[in-house]
Amino acid sequence: MALVFEHQVGVRWRDTDALGHVNNAVYLTYLEEARDAFYLQALGDPIYVVVRVEIDFRAEIRHADRTARVAITVERLGTTSLTTREILRTAAGEVAAEARVITVRWDQDARAAIPFSEQQRGRLAEFSG
Amino acid sequence: MALVFEHQVGVRWRDTDALGHVNNAVYLTYLEEARDAFYLQALGDPIYVVVRVEIDFRAEIRHADRTARVAITVERLGTTSLTTREILRTAAGEVAAEARVITVRWDQDARAAIPFSEQQRGRLAEFSG
Amino acid sequence: MALVFEHQVGVRWRDTDALGHVNNAVYLTYLEEARDAFYLQALGDPIYVVVRVEIDFRAEIRHADRTARVAITVERLGTTSLTTREILRTAAGEVAAEARVITVRWDQDARAAIPFSEQQRGRLAEFSG
Amino acid sequence: MALVFEHQVGVRWRDTDALGHVNNAVYLTYLEEARDAFYLQALGDPIYVVVRVEIDFRAEIRHADRTARVAITVERLGTTSLTTREILRTAAGEVAAEARVITVRWDQDARAAIPFSEQQRGRLAEFSG
Repeated sequence: MALVFEHQVGVRWRDTDALGHVNNAVYLTYLEEARDAFYLQALGDPIYVVVRVEIDFRAEIRHADRTARVAITVERLGTTSLTTREILRTAAGEVAAEARVITVRWDQDARAAIPFSEQQRGRLAEFSG
Repeated sequence: MALVFEHQVGVRWRDTDALGHVNNAVYLTYLEEARDAFYLQALGDPIYVVVRVEIDFRAEIRHADRTARVAITVERLGTTSLTTREILRTAAGEVAAEARVITVRWDQDARAAIPFSEQQRGRLAEFSG
Repeated sequence: MALVFEHQVGVRWRDTDALGHVNNAVYLTYLEEARDAFYLQALGDPIYVVVRVEIDFRAEIRHADRTARVAITVERLGTTSLTTREILRTAAGEVAAEARVITVRWDQDARAAIPFSEQQRGRLAEFSG
Repeated sequence: MALVFEHQVGVRWRDTDALGHVNNAVYLTYLEEARDAFYLQALGDPIYVVVRVEIDFRAEIRHADRTARVAITVERLGTTSLTTREILRTAAGEVAAEARVITVRWDQDARAAIPFSEQQRGRLAEFSG
């Protein structure tokens, strides 16, 4: 039975665009905030680089919603890379977007990818769907 | 022989994040600016909604670059949907990201997708790879 | 004895820039979020336009802070305009910025300023410093 | 006779909000882009920190404008601080905002303000109104 990491994000007026809803690029920011919190909790270190994103936009988010929620599970764990499934839901619970995101742990000084430790692999495995 | 739509975007200091490079979500904004210009030129109407994005991040963009470039071609044309291939390059010409984006033309009043006209289909076909 | 309106905002990774701290323009977004919540609570209607901002930047905010807080009081109430004092504090309680902001209530259809009602004036007076 | 530094900025769809115009916080980003270019040209070094902003919002900017322009002159030059007058204009030439901005040159490693050199003072004096 896999754990699901859940994180709430605030919806800002600045997130909207002239179509009256949250701009599509901001969805990636919502996912990023949740993923940062996930990395921090699961790995104790939020530094990573995004390698690939696949995202299906399903529903609008509006400023009046005030919040949205992200659910994250682990789909695949490589040596230095992590594939997560990320579901963004409106405050009312509707799926706003479904994403698959590949990240790599990052050494900012060396500017290079670094492998997950055994302990980190164990922590991430708990979130495997 | 297909046309390629090319568009230059400015890189802002605000686009960077604390890793010292342009934040990954901003790549979608760069693509969006180019796509808006493409829609405007090819269709005479820049109103559309993004349905799906697949994006591979290849290289960093930095504020010192000052500009980046996007090249757009048409991969598939549906009744109301358009699949574009979008290549983001640094000022030096390095590929920073490669994306496939599905959009639908959008009627803002009806809040519904609308079909491309025959004339629009003809214009878009010129950009088919 | 004046009421103070308090509102917490989330600090996002996307809010930072390449100097490693929250970008100065984002401070206005933090104030805006709090002001929207204030307008909504005090007036029941968050639609307004910003006319003037004076802001003194006092301290950095960092992503690791995760949250910041805004305190709002009313300094002056005109026929259609409202002058607020807005204090932004880090999660640790340090003053990050002090601002004076003039807004006007806005009729989006008429694209014109509209006067506060007597009931609204009464609500706003409770927050006068 | 003082020089005026002029800089054009691109207007992005992402800069708009649900009121259909460019969000007020983004005006600071437009000014920042122009100021960065000014610092780079006049000082050869774009690293500074914003201490205070006074900004009067005069007119809307819309995505259809595609560009806006900023004109910068020097109002006051202190030991480490610079006060600039910054006028933001729409593509049609209408004044969108007038700002007075105080910045200090910044040593990112020392995290401290640093004085302008004599050569830099001479360059800045050419832009004094």
